Amino acid sequence: MEHTRLKGVMAPVLTPMDEALNPDVPRWIALCKELLSEGCTGLAPFGTTSEANSLGIGERMEMLDRALEEGVPAQSLVVGTGTCALPDTVRLSAQAAARKCAGVLLLPPFYYKGVPEEGLFRSVAQLIEKVGDANLKVYLYHIPPVAVVGFGLGLIERLLKAYPGTVVGMKDSSGDVEFHLAALKAFPGFDIWAGTEKLLLANLQGGGVGTISAMANVIAPQIRAFHDSWKEPEAASRQAALDRHRLSIKDWPLIPALKAIKAGQTGHAPWSLTRPPLCPLSDSQAQAALVSYKASFS
Amino acid sequence: MEHTRLKGVMAPVLTPMDEALNPDVPRWIALCKELLSEGCTGLAPFGTTSEANSLGIGERMEMLDRALEEGVPAQSLVVGTGTCALPDTVRLSAQAAARKCAGVLLLPPFYYKGVPEEGLFRSVAQLIEKVGDANLKVYLYHIPPVAVVGFGLGLIERLLKAYPGTVVGMKDSSGDVEFHLAALKAFPGFDIWAGTEKLLLANLQGGGVGTISAMANVIAPQIRAFHDSWKEPEAASRQAALDRHRLSIKDWPLIPALKAIKAGQTGHAPWSLTRPPLCPLSDSQAQAALVSYKASFS
Repeated sequence: MEHTRLKGVMAPVLTPMDEALNPDVPRWIALCKELLSEGCTGLAPFGTTSEANSLGIGERMEMLDRALEEGVPAQSLVVGTGTCALPDTVRLSAQAAARKCAGVLLLPPFYYKGVPEEGLFRSVAQLIEKVGDANLKVYLYHIPPVAVVGFGLGLIERLLKAYPGTVVGMKDSSGDVEFHLAALKAFPGFDIWAGTEKLLLANLQGGGVGTISAMANVIAPQIRAFHDSWKEPEAASRQAALDRHRLSIKDWPLIPALKAIKAGQTGHAPWSLTRPPLCPLSDSQAQAALVSYKASFS
Repeated sequence: MEHTRLKGVMAPVLTPMDEALNPDVPRWIALCKELLSEGCTGLAPFGTTSEANSLGIGERMEMLDRALEEGVPAQSLVVGTGTCALPDTVRLSAQAAARKCAGVLLLPPFYYKGVPEEGLFRSVAQLIEKVGDANLKVYLYHIPPVAVVGFGLGLIERLLKAYPGTVVGMKDSSGDVEFHLAALKAFPGFDIWAGTEKLLLANLQGGGVGTISAMANVIAPQIRAFHDSWKEPEAASRQAALDRHRLSIKDWPLIPALKAIKAGQTGHAPWSLTRPPLCPLSDSQAQAALVSYKASFS
C-alpha cells in the first residue's frame, strides 16, 4: 500500500483523565472518532496539548494499541513520540511505524539546552536507523516556546538531504510567522503544518498543508470549513472570524481551558482534570472561560 | 536501620558508553567504586552530568540494580529519578526506595514551562504518595539553567511543611549565589548541596552539607581535601586554587570535556563518547582540554 500523506486539519487530541488522573481511555478513543467525524483529516495524539510528556512510556504505548484495536484508523494518526531519551523515542516510534501509522511527530531531545546542531542531527539520524522501518514517516515538531530546543532551517535542510522520503514534514509551533514563511519557501514539497489555526491562511497561501491545532479539539468543524474555502473571497476576514474562538479563552492557560470547555459541553466533570504540573481551572475560571468561549460563536 | 543522611562530596557519576552508544555498565560500576575510594562520601548517579535524561527508563533501572548487585552500597546513592512524566518518575523512585538508596534526586517535570507552583507541588506530592515507601528521601534538584523549571523558595517551604522527613534536601545548580544563601538561611536543617564545587566554601559557611559536583568525576580527592579543611586559614584562597581545575576546561562543553579527560587518563578511547544530543569533543579539542586540565595541577 502506498503511503498517503495527510493534509488539512489535525487535532492534537486532548487526553481526558479519570479521578485518579489516569487516562480515561474509552473517552479518549471516543474523542478521536468524534474529531474525525467532525472534519479532522487526521489526528496527532500525544502532542503538547495531549499532555503526552506527562504520560509514561507504557501508558502511551497501551493507549495507541487500544485506539487501533477499537477502529481508529492508523493512517489517520501522526503520533507524538519524541522524548528526551533516544531508547524511549525509538520504542514509541517503532510501535507507530509497525502499526503503519501515518507518521510520528518528533520533538527533539529537549532536556539539554544549547546543544550543537550536529547532536540534534545525530539524534534524528539514530532514531531513523534504529527504528529501521520503511513505514516510519517523521514530522519534525518545532515548538521552542515549550521545548526550548528546536529545529532550525539549517538542520531541516541536512535532515531532508540525508533522509528524503522519511523526514516528510514539520509541525511549526514556533508562533514565528517569519520562520514559518521562510521554511515554506525553503522546502517546497516538505509538508509544513501550522501549529495554530491562527496561521492557517498564511500556511496555505505559502504552500503549506494545513494546521495541527489545539483548538481543533473544540472547533474542528469551523477550522475545517475555513480550510476548505480559503481560496474564496474575503479569506482574511474569515480567518479573523475563526481567530475569535481562540481569543475568547486567551485569559486562561490553553490546555486547562480546553478541558474546562469539554467538561462544560459534556457535563462530565472529570474532563477538566489535568496531570501535574498542569492544574485545572478553578470552578469560577472554568465558568468564565465557557461563557467567553460560547460568546465567540455569536 | 536508621536513615543516615549523607554529607560531604558527591559525584554525579559520568555514564561511559560503548561504541554502540549503550552504557558500558562494568566500566560505570568500576567508576562508582573508584569515586567512593577516592574520597566521595556518596554518589549521585543519573544526574545531568550522567546524561541520565538521554537514557531510557529501562536502562536506568537495570543499571541501578547491577550496581547494587556488584556491591555499590545503596546507602551511598542519591539516585536521579525525575522525568517529565509522573508514572516514569514513580517507577524510578519506587525502585530506589525499595533498594534502600540514600535518596532520590528529583528534577521537577520539565517539559511544560511557566506552570503554576501548585502544579509543581502536586507533582512532588503525588510522587511521594504513589511511591508510598518510608524509605523514600527526596532531594529536590534545582537546575533552571538546564531544566528551565525549578524549585523556588515558596515551593520548597510548602513541601517541607507537607512532607517533613521525606523532603530532606536540595541540590542547587542554579549558579545563583544569592538564591543559594537565601535557601540556606531560610531552611536550617534542610540538606542543601552546592551544585558546583565553586560554591563549596560558601555552602559550608552558610550551613550547607557539601557539594554534588560534576568535577568530582575527575578531581574527587582535591574536592574532598578542601571540604575536610574548609575551616582552616586561607580557605578563600584554597577555594580559588580548587576552582582552577574547572576554569581550565571552561572553553569546552563540560560533559564532553570530562569524558575526554577520562579517555585521555585511561587510554580507553570510547570514554569520550556521548549520546546525542551531546557531541564528543573533536580529537584536537580533546587534546587541548586534556593539556589545559593537566596544567591546572601545576
